[in-house]
Amino acid sequence: MKTVMTNGDLNAQTGVGIALLTFSAPQATQAMAFVNSDADMLYVPQQGSLLITTELGLLHIEPNEIACIPRGMVYRIEVATDSASSVCKAYVCENYGAAFRLPELGPIGSQGLANARDFLAPVAAFDADDRELTPTTLIKKFGGKFWQSQQAHSPFNVLAWHGNLVAFKYDTRRFNTLGSVSFDHPDPSIFTVLTSPSDTAGTANCDFVIFPPRWLVTEHTFRPPWYHRNTMSEMMGLVHGQYDAKEEGFLPGGVSLHNQMVPHGPDSDAFVKATNAPELKPVKLGDTLAFMFESRYRFNVTDYALTEHAPDANYADCWKKL
Amino acid sequence: MKTVMTNGDLNAQTGVGIALLTFSAPQATQAMAFVNSDADMLYVPQQGSLLITTELGLLHIEPNEIACIPRGMVYRIEVATDSASSVCKAYVCENYGAAFRLPELGPIGSQGLANARDFLAPVAAFDADDRELTPTTLIKKFGGKFWQSQQAHSPFNVLAWHGNLVAFKYDTRRFNTLGSVSFDHPDPSIFTVLTSPSDTAGTANCDFVIFPPRWLVTEHTFRPPWYHRNTMSEMMGLVHGQYDAKEEGFLPGGVSLHNQMVPHGPDSDAFVKATNAPELKPVKLGDTLAFMFESRYRFNVTDYALTEHAPDANYADCWKKL
Amino acid sequence: MKTVMTNGDLNAQTGVGIALLTFSAPQATQAMAFVNSDADMLYVPQQGSLLITTELGLLHIEPNEIACIPRGMVYRIEVATDSASSVCKAYVCENYGAAFRLPELGPIGSQGLANARDFLAPVAAFDADDRELTPTTLIKKFGGKFWQSQQAHSPFNVLAWHGNLVAFKYDTRRFNTLGSVSFDHPDPSIFTVLTSPSDTAGTANCDFVIFPPRWLVTEHTFRPPWYHRNTMSEMMGLVHGQYDAKEEGFLPGGVSLHNQMVPHGPDSDAFVKATNAPELKPVKLGDTLAFMFESRYRFNVTDYALTEHAPDANYADCWKKL
Amino acid sequence: MKTVMTNGDLNAQTGVGIALLTFSAPQATQAMAFVNSDADMLYVPQQGSLLITTELGLLHIEPNEIACIPRGMVYRIEVATDSASSVCKAYVCENYGAAFRLPELGPIGSQGLANARDFLAPVAAFDADDRELTPTTLIKKFGGKFWQSQQAHSPFNVLAWHGNLVAFKYDTRRFNTLGSVSFDHPDPSIFTVLTSPSDTAGTANCDFVIFPPRWLVTEHTFRPPWYHRNTMSEMMGLVHGQYDAKEEGFLPGGVSLHNQMVPHGPDSDAFVKATNAPELKPVKLGDTLAFMFESRYRFNVTDYALTEHAPDANYADCWKKL
Amino acid sequence: MKTVMTNGDLNAQTGVGIALLTFSAPQATQAMAFVNSDADMLYVPQQGSLLITTELGLLHIEPNEIACIPRGMVYRIEVATDSASSVCKAYVCENYGAAFRLPELGPIGSQGLANARDFLAPVAAFDADDRELTPTTLIKKFGGKFWQSQQAHSPFNVLAWHGNLVAFKYDTRRFNTLGSVSFDHPDPSIFTVLTSPSDTAGTANCDFVIFPPRWLVTEHTFRPPWYHRNTMSEMMGLVHGQYDAKEEGFLPGGVSLHNQMVPHGPDSDAFVKATNAPELKPVKLGDTLAFMFESRYRFNVTDYALTEHAPDANYADCWKKL
Amino acid sequence: MKTVMTNGDLNAQTGVGIALLTFSAPQATQAMAFVNSDADMLYVPQQGSLLITTELGLLHIEPNEIACIPRGMVYRIEVATDSASSVCKAYVCENYGAAFRLPELGPIGSQGLANARDFLAPVAAFDADDRELTPTTLIKKFGGKFWQSQQAHSPFNVLAWHGNLVAFKYDTRRFNTLGSVSFDHPDPSIFTVLTSPSDTAGTANCDFVIFPPRWLVTEHTFRPPWYHRNTMSEMMGLVHGQYDAKEEGFLPGGVSLHNQMVPHGPDSDAFVKATNAPELKPVKLGDTLAFMFESRYRFNVTDYALTEHAPDANYADCWKKL
Repeated sequence: MKTVMTNGDLNAQTGVGIALLTFSAPQATQAMAFVNSDADMLYVPQQGSLLITTELGLLHIEPNEIACIPRGMVYRIEVATDSASSVCKAYVCENYGAAFRLPELGPIGSQGLANARDFLAPVAAFDADDRELTPTTLIKKFGGKFWQSQQAHSPFNVLAWHGNLVAFKYDTRRFNTLGSVSFDHPDPSIFTVLTSPSDTAGTANCDFVIFPPRWLVTEHTFRPPWYHRNTMSEMMGLVHGQYDAKEEGFLPGGVSLHNQMVPHGPDSDAFVKATNAPELKPVKLGDTLAFMFESRYRFNVTDYALTEHAPDANYADCWKKL
Repeated sequence: MKTVMTNGDLNAQTGVGIALLTFSAPQATQAMAFVNSDADMLYVPQQGSLLITTELGLLHIEPNEIACIPRGMVYRIEVATDSASSVCKAYVCENYGAAFRLPELGPIGSQGLANARDFLAPVAAFDADDRELTPTTLIKKFGGKFWQSQQAHSPFNVLAWHGNLVAFKYDTRRFNTLGSVSFDHPDPSIFTVLTSPSDTAGTANCDFVIFPPRWLVTEHTFRPPWYHRNTMSEMMGLVHGQYDAKEEGFLPGGVSLHNQMVPHGPDSDAFVKATNAPELKPVKLGDTLAFMFESRYRFNVTDYALTEHAPDANYADCWKKL
Repeated sequence: MKTVMTNGDLNAQTGVGIALLTFSAPQATQAMAFVNSDADMLYVPQQGSLLITTELGLLHIEPNEIACIPRGMVYRIEVATDSASSVCKAYVCENYGAAFRLPELGPIGSQGLANARDFLAPVAAFDADDRELTPTTLIKKFGGKFWQSQQAHSPFNVLAWHGNLVAFKYDTRRFNTLGSVSFDHPDPSIFTVLTSPSDTAGTANCDFVIFPPRWLVTEHTFRPPWYHRNTMSEMMGLVHGQYDAKEEGFLPGGVSLHNQMVPHGPDSDAFVKATNAPELKPVKLGDTLAFMFESRYRFNVTDYALTEHAPDANYADCWKKL
Repeated sequence: MKTVMTNGDLNAQTGVGIALLTFSAPQATQAMAFVNSDADMLYVPQQGSLLITTELGLLHIEPNEIACIPRGMVYRIEVATDSASSVCKAYVCENYGAAFRLPELGPIGSQGLANARDFLAPVAAFDADDRELTPTTLIKKFGGKFWQSQQAHSPFNVLAWHGNLVAFKYDTRRFNTLGSVSFDHPDPSIFTVLTSPSDTAGTANCDFVIFPPRWLVTEHTFRPPWYHRNTMSEMMGLVHGQYDAKEEGFLPGGVSLHNQMVPHGPDSDAFVKATNAPELKPVKLGDTLAFMFESRYRFNVTDYALTEHAPDANYADCWKKL
Repeated sequence: MKTVMTNGDLNAQTGVGIALLTFSAPQATQAMAFVNSDADMLYVPQQGSLLITTELGLLHIEPNEIACIPRGMVYRIEVATDSASSVCKAYVCENYGAAFRLPELGPIGSQGLANARDFLAPVAAFDADDRELTPTTLIKKFGGKFWQSQQAHSPFNVLAWHGNLVAFKYDTRRFNTLGSVSFDHPDPSIFTVLTSPSDTAGTANCDFVIFPPRWLVTEHTFRPPWYHRNTMSEMMGLVHGQYDAKEEGFLPGGVSLHNQMVPHGPDSDAFVKATNAPELKPVKLGDTLAFMFESRYRFNVTDYALTEHAPDANYADCWKKL
Repeated sequence: MKTVMTNGDLNAQTGVGIALLTFSAPQATQAMAFVNSDADMLYVPQQGSLLITTELGLLHIEPNEIACIPRGMVYRIEVATDSASSVCKAYVCENYGAAFRLPELGPIGSQGLANARDFLAPVAAFDADDRELTPTTLIKKFGGKFWQSQQAHSPFNVLAWHGNLVAFKYDTRRFNTLGSVSFDHPDPSIFTVLTSPSDTAGTANCDFVIFPPRWLVTEHTFRPPWYHRNTMSEMMGLVHGQYDAKEEGFLPGGVSLHNQMVPHGPDSDAFVKATNAPELKPVKLGDTLAFMFESRYRFNVTDYALTEHAPDANYADCWKKL
């Protein structure tokens, strides 16, 4: 797991860290487990299926699904036995701020977007007998650093629990996508799955926003996203398919970053395609899932990302022909 | 102007009255004017064009448009000279509660539904010279009763004004209609144009909701409204076209009422049509404008409405075949 | 079911009605059902066990338990087959205002008083086959009046449901009673099970408060309730046992009323007993359940209660010796 | 005065510093005075009596009492002439955040916990005549650093004042302790004396919580604190007596720290004792006063504390036998 | 005491009643006392000095002062022995709604208008010995009706009390009057002494507003009140002096009423005087005290006021010359 | 532009930077433009007139006026062609926190202080033809650092716009100054023009407060500001005239700083003058404009200010004679 950008201040409980997770072999022997005391962990798998063992039970997620582990909970991540790929990749958001919650829906009403009933708790499971007695190394993130301790037994020995803090998974294919059915291009906030609010309405610590399959039917409208400078900072990822504002140069597993007030919008190709569309018929934007972690704080890119992941030096060229 | 139903309590500044307005001749000679001290007045013309002269200037509205006159402001309504029909008809909502305002948009973001910039103030106009000296009869609604006084001059003699209380008009064709672009049928609150809130979020004193032309693209979905009992009371009207949950028996200019907790939904025909649709392709729900005044208080139908407007005694039969 | 007192205004969605329910035979043949469009119904059984059949399934309650049916939901009440008494009695609160909810706990923290996990949804059940086809008379309360209609089938034919409006039961024996473990007599608000808030914090539309078994350990304290005038109005009932501020003259199934600003407190006997207690040792206040419906609005006693239920004309004598 | 741990950020007006104050001789000649521009100062004396001279008058506190001096107010601390010990010790909380206030009581009602009427303002006093003319050295904490200036007269020369910012004292023996009188172990928030809230309800900048003498009467309950990981960080101190979750190894004047998400709970001895108690009779937890400064931010221990105050290296062993 | 107008709904705890109180002889023998269970009572004496005996002690008020007795508190009113007039007159506001409180000051800051420290609690007093044993008739207002009972002793036998509900007096001469020191005429809300808020900010259940002595220094301004229609209803009284917008026809002890949306403003004389003022020098508006009870609800004038107090039939003539 | 003090934390979006701007020649050739991604920019010109070209049009400001450019908007500042001085000077507040807005007025009512209608949007203007094609260097402040890029055309090529984020100007001579018209010296918050709120009411991130011409009429009052320690930090500037609490040693263009809890007040001369005034007649405080940026955070003075702008080492001497 490599952190590519962070913002805010872990000690002040603001901001997020964004990491890329890759593992082809079992992440660890059975004898290791992890706990993050600083942050909630949101996993967005992009390749392969993950099995997350938590103190509350098991979460199995595959691309198009997400999982969230609250801070202070012990867990372990492995390649699931049914994974289509032996190499698993995931985007990870380490949230130092307020816990992710569902947005208030306002005029959308009593249901819509991500519905509460589609969030799933872990499947009950615990280590018993011999397994319970396996000596385990516990890795802990605390105060931004890693610490390690040994314990004589498995931490996954909880028989039953009740409470209101829970690890969960969600399938984005159950997202009730809303949009314009008349004209104009709505704000992407209409695609908010989960929000970590700040003290100021409208400028979240972090919004998790998806761009799922959906119908485009707006008339008298330039259908791709508009050109804009955003008061918030946008980190985007792509799980699969093509993102309609940038069909080339933004690949599944990649990351784009548009920090606060950096102007951006569709690339030249997308602009030409949209302005030359002969007639605005209904179009199903099909098999794709892009997403955004949008934050009120400016992201700082890590040295690791700048050196190990070759940044796209010609990124701005995509607008050159405009 | 005939009141057909009311609710709440005018003296407690809660609830609304719903009236039907019809006039074929000039409503009054030039020498009459009206002021409602009890309520804001929302006009929804259904036939013909209206000219509303206010202390702040002129508002010209036709079907698909609405106008609102705040309480305490003097005005006069006439058939506009360019009216397509010499008989004008309008629905009127007399709002005793909090002034109509735009709903908070929540995740919809910074724009959407009715946009603030589309609400238009009156066009400047005033009576000068001889016209200013016309003796005028002022009719006032105050405490639920009508009062009358004479004055030696026109009340429309205001040269200029500034302030934050204003009569306004709005063209519903500029409504940025949102809806599901995936599956499911959203709450009609997503069509809210204006809301008069109560002290309890989610249960308005009165919501003005429209059902404008829009694309239907939802998949795996029963597309008409669902069958439901509502904690609020729904008064519906139809400006023109057909309402998709009841294509027959609900004519332009008509009124339907489903009070709180009265079960209702699409009629048998709409049900059969929707469940037998061979394939759910995108459909443009075209030339129509239905609307709803939805209130947390139960509507009481006036004697006038029960006797003069023959209620549809067989209304419930529309669900018989279900 | 006989209403003994009401307050507020059903049409304004404020206040409550208090009724006494008694039935020795089946309340109705299978072919009847009831729905209240005006109010949520809170049942506090005092004698015998009740079976409540709702559209969502079955609730079985006995003394010490309560059940709540939200407005607009169809249900039927019968003597349960396992009832210890063939005559069932219950107190009923018809709540016109905001739905009952758990109080905010403040410094009590994340758990305490009535815990959310102890509220139980109905047990799944529905009428199928022949039972589904039983013609049923539906009695509806709407606008403060009773209405009746016939339908050709059972209303309890719902196979499955999801939503966030639900009938529920609660066992007051699971109430986590808090109190002083040092000195002084806390406000009875510390015994709040459910509250129907008004727009003003601290003055509820209705609080449902219980006086369950608990330990009394306060020192240097007059342990019974204090003498007071209350800004709110207090209707009390007794399910079983003795109420410590009035051991005589307040019997199970009875009702006492102290309207706003009426001074009251322990009777002379309770006063003498408490002030002469030789030493304040821990005492378990055992097998008893009194309760209170406390409302910001003054209760108006019905003619029925004043004539059919002989009011205690000498009630005030209980304080005479003070 | 030696700071042992801090958190938050003084410049951002968040967090607290915790210090241990010891002095056996007069803290200063008459000619010195102190003012903290950065923080309110909460004193919790553990040994000996303190006399605090402030611009508003005198506060005399002894163990079981506390005093708070608002930021910007000049004061001086001395061993009181009637002190039982010539060596005085106190815990000090330097609060950079929102001023300490009483918590909202919620269902506890209009009184309970620390009651407003038990907070005492300084006793009027001022330096006159010769004393007024004593040259004084003023030590100021400003921006986290100490500054010094000379003035020709005493700062305690205020004859009278009015206002709403005041130094105060409070006697914890007047705390109206609430707790469970049925079963279960409530959250320690029920012992909150004062809170310095943050912008997020439930996660205070700092809560000052006490564990005073009280009755334990809960049944069917493990009476000591539960085992838990806390989203907040807990710094505990002991004024006198024994803390029931750790009777050994936690001495008066000592400090324990359990930072966020560090699992903890009663030691092995406490566990054995509680689970083997033959019968759960009422027990008076007598002569003791432990307390907690609980904060949403992680505490950082100072070098001073790590080197000068030998940390208990075997602290975790207390749970080994579990 | 004669009620001249009321609004709102006593049972719904909204609105106020306005009464005129006159008594030349002792209001009652020592053996009578009064309690209002429905409303707080605000007294504005206009002639003579009043002695109010309450359960908490004595309040002595004279013109320019006010007193408020909370609902449920027993009291007695008499002509004070030092009254300059043997006939006492007072305006009375019976407040059914939220208790009067100080307004939030907003940008005015931490002090200004009526300062909290100028509100005085009753002077301690109680009936002892023989006086304590005087049989007393208690008159109670409850549910809008008067009730009477006998008790064997004086109700004013309270030795000491503490609490947060208190009768109080205030001297309007201590009102820190703010106003424009540049130009323009501020809203009269800047003269608010006490407010009984409603659930909607800006539209109080009742504001008590005074027009005390003050400097007028505004330049380029029409200094009297503007001509306006008010969304709230204004009941005005005059304690002494002249009101600057109507120097004639509005006498001390009189009442004027401008209900919601009734246009009004300075009379013709005031208009001529203000527009012809040769130069806008600073002017001290001296010895006068007018006041207003301003309410969001329309006042209904009682039959008593319409018949016994001859209304000024030519009131509107004061604007004729305009 | 030289920054003289900062506070808060740009990355956490709190605090402000204060800078002094001086330029005698054109600030830049036509080919340069500036954008601040971190902060809104508030300009307070002190000498000469400025022309600000923004993407939305032109703002022309002179002393007594102010202008504000929201973060992310491109603009250019030049000496206006009609400037009375070829050397222009301005105070600049770089606001990292919440956008400046008008304060809530509280009892001041619906108008007063700075009125919304006096804030002016830019005058429409754009670069067309040749000017549009001028290559331009864009200087950007981003993350506290300056960045530079080239573009082939003018950024001021926007033909039309709509939206709710706008650059604006305001003339402080239109400020409706309120103050005491009786006695006492109000809080300076009564002079608030704009506020950038923090999460805590009463302690703004930054208040922009002016001391404009106004009448002083208070009686029985020490009319200059009081002596005080402020929980907030005060940076003052002087546009022209004399500040009444310090007539000497505080010159136009100068800066004074009183950080949190630093005691201050009128200098000795002001004190003597005010206490010896023979009679408190109305006085017009004439031709002057001082102002304050008041912040909850302590200001840190930059090295530049400490070395290049000789601080007044004898500043405290102004109080020596007191």
